[in-house]
Amino acid sequence: MTVSNSHRITTDQLEVPPRILLGPGPSNAHPRVLQALGMRQVGHLDPQFIGLMNETQELLRYVWQTDNRLTIPVSGTGSAAMEASLANTVEPGDVVLIGVNGYFGERLCDMAGRYGADVRRIEKPWGQVFSLDELRAALHEHRPAVLGLVHAETSTGARQPLEGVAELCRETNTLLLVDTVTSIGGVPLFIDEWGVDVAYAGSQKCLSCPPGIAPLTLGERAVEKLNRRQTKVANWYLDMTMVGKYWGSERTYHHTAPINMNYAFREALRLVAEEGLEARWERHRQNAELLWDGLAELGIACHVPVEYRLPSLTTAVIPDGVDGKAVARYLLQNYNIEIAAGLGQLGGKVWRIGLMGFNSRRENVLLLLSALKDALKRIS
Amino acid sequence: MTVSNSHRITTDQLEVPPRILLGPGPSNAHPRVLQALGMRQVGHLDPQFIGLMNETQELLRYVWQTDNRLTIPVSGTGSAAMEASLANTVEPGDVVLIGVNGYFGERLCDMAGRYGADVRRIEKPWGQVFSLDELRAALHEHRPAVLGLVHAETSTGARQPLEGVAELCRETNTLLLVDTVTSIGGVPLFIDEWGVDVAYAGSQKCLSCPPGIAPLTLGERAVEKLNRRQTKVANWYLDMTMVGKYWGSERTYHHTAPINMNYAFREALRLVAEEGLEARWERHRQNAELLWDGLAELGIACHVPVEYRLPSLTTAVIPDGVDGKAVARYLLQNYNIEIAAGLGQLGGKVWRIGLMGFNSRRENVLLLLSALKDALKRIS
Repeated sequence: MTVSNSHRITTDQLEVPPRILLGPGPSNAHPRVLQALGMRQVGHLDPQFIGLMNETQELLRYVWQTDNRLTIPVSGTGSAAMEASLANTVEPGDVVLIGVNGYFGERLCDMAGRYGADVRRIEKPWGQVFSLDELRAALHEHRPAVLGLVHAETSTGARQPLEGVAELCRETNTLLLVDTVTSIGGVPLFIDEWGVDVAYAGSQKCLSCPPGIAPLTLGERAVEKLNRRQTKVANWYLDMTMVGKYWGSERTYHHTAPINMNYAFREALRLVAEEGLEARWERHRQNAELLWDGLAELGIACHVPVEYRLPSLTTAVIPDGVDGKAVARYLLQNYNIEIAAGLGQLGGKVWRIGLMGFNSRRENVLLLLSALKDALKRIS
Repeated sequence: MTVSNSHRITTDQLEVPPRILLGPGPSNAHPRVLQALGMRQVGHLDPQFIGLMNETQELLRYVWQTDNRLTIPVSGTGSAAMEASLANTVEPGDVVLIGVNGYFGERLCDMAGRYGADVRRIEKPWGQVFSLDELRAALHEHRPAVLGLVHAETSTGARQPLEGVAELCRETNTLLLVDTVTSIGGVPLFIDEWGVDVAYAGSQKCLSCPPGIAPLTLGERAVEKLNRRQTKVANWYLDMTMVGKYWGSERTYHHTAPINMNYAFREALRLVAEEGLEARWERHRQNAELLWDGLAELGIACHVPVEYRLPSLTTAVIPDGVDGKAVARYLLQNYNIEIAAGLGQLGGKVWRIGLMGFNSRRENVLLLLSALKDALKRIS
């Protein structure tokens, strides 16, 4: 047998432009995180790595404000943790109620359906949020095993208030499952105080770690449901009855952990612990307000009312007659700034501007506003 | 609501011991790969990143010797690619025949069952391989939709010959699915010439990239079966009807790619293209033979007969009366060398010694043999 060289292309060493990632994520990783990422490997059962795993879990509990034992980083991106949250808690035939007010609510429906859930929807226009009355009525109508809500909708920039929701879920014996991808580390979030049973997140937004590892936490009630299952979890890679044993005291091999992503993730969590959650949330709030004021001065409105507007992700309404895509392209080509277009119902209507983690800095806001001003003058 | 500091631990900056990873994987990443890994991010839809994706796919086709369009890195570890290979090709009720002669054959059975397959097994003691006659008989008995074989069994060190298997599979209209986790980049492997329909691999063995990204390829017949499905792929994250559109010309957003892992993976593939497959395979063979000769001098036998012994992973029989675990611990503590214990049927019976990718070097073989000699003197 002879080797074919038809796909043996010659490529240059990697050259990466100095992008400033002010879209819906990934945001730029913190330099200390990138440094940790590039360190040499140890084995995934090395005593040194096991020490690191314990520290990571503990720091993640701080960041999420939870005591949950089963609090771990999943070996994939945020979407993998999202799928893990459903794969482990949903059994075929379970009624699952999803709050759909954006792209990620839609995705929860799609995923839950693949695990045999009887999916019910409660809907709102993209950018709005659900009231406690609306949630109570839907819970009593559907009596679901699981209620899925998106705390921070990356597609709309809306923050779903969660206070009081768990109490309603207890009335119908429903698990509360929450998407915290764009809130973790940037927006006030109290998993235990709010009674959240299952939550997942991403590493690449307000935690300033590259994508490829994703937080997941399961509270006691969720673990009980998992242990009571009649059927195996219909997903081997994300089966927490097995993954949990690697992260638990047994240290049983399941799959090879992404070692370097775990290095990076630990460093990202250390940075949160150093700064402190209160200071970090406040920083995100202040820089977001600076952005909102600046946008107003440019005559650009925000899509989401201020009372439930996310500081981490702003949907800015594209002014009439302006070619939104051309503006985004101009910012990228001329200033290395990435912002993103709207999705779904908001396609063509908004820009999505992220100020997340390390990128939530005054200088980024100022630069973006100046660049946007320039773009609006040149284009349209 | 006030923030609790109960899990806000103080930890030091990451300190990593200089391990030489000569177990079943991960192996040490190549320094150039670690350098690429730590580079700053761009967005997952950035034109620069899309160029990198194209190069990566092309290089991966070279490494696997395939023209398959759907040849991509999956956003998880090797186990995720393994699951993707089954999730996409298996529909509920499909008969799936698995060759079980080690741990990873067992895992294929477990995974396939979760996707509703009617799993049939053909078995051999761990360390042996299947003959064409045995495979033909089993194919005609079970007439499976998919035959799963492990090309390089990481748990046993055996290499399953694949020449001629695809021709048998054509007789029963069976897809040939192959685990190449421990062979890719280190052991002769010809996906197209051998008629393999589906293959998956890991990044962290002979490719010398950290774990967290994993190659997958689907040939024409596999893609046809995927497109004919009556049911959605029962796994959202690994659904190639959607992931394939992100890696295809559409570039439709599915999930955020692990940017930095993709940087690293591209660099790892570049290193293979620079060295050339023939030279790389020859290097792995020569260093393995050096190891086997040295083990023989120490009175240590190899578990697998030389004609189907893997150069990338050797199962060395622990001499009578020697505490295998104590020896492994001694090597780690005194020389920073990681080797691994046996699994399953080989638990307590063998050490697993890997010479993979960047780690397949004469100096590592010499050091390991000297250290092993020392360990055997001190322990037992």
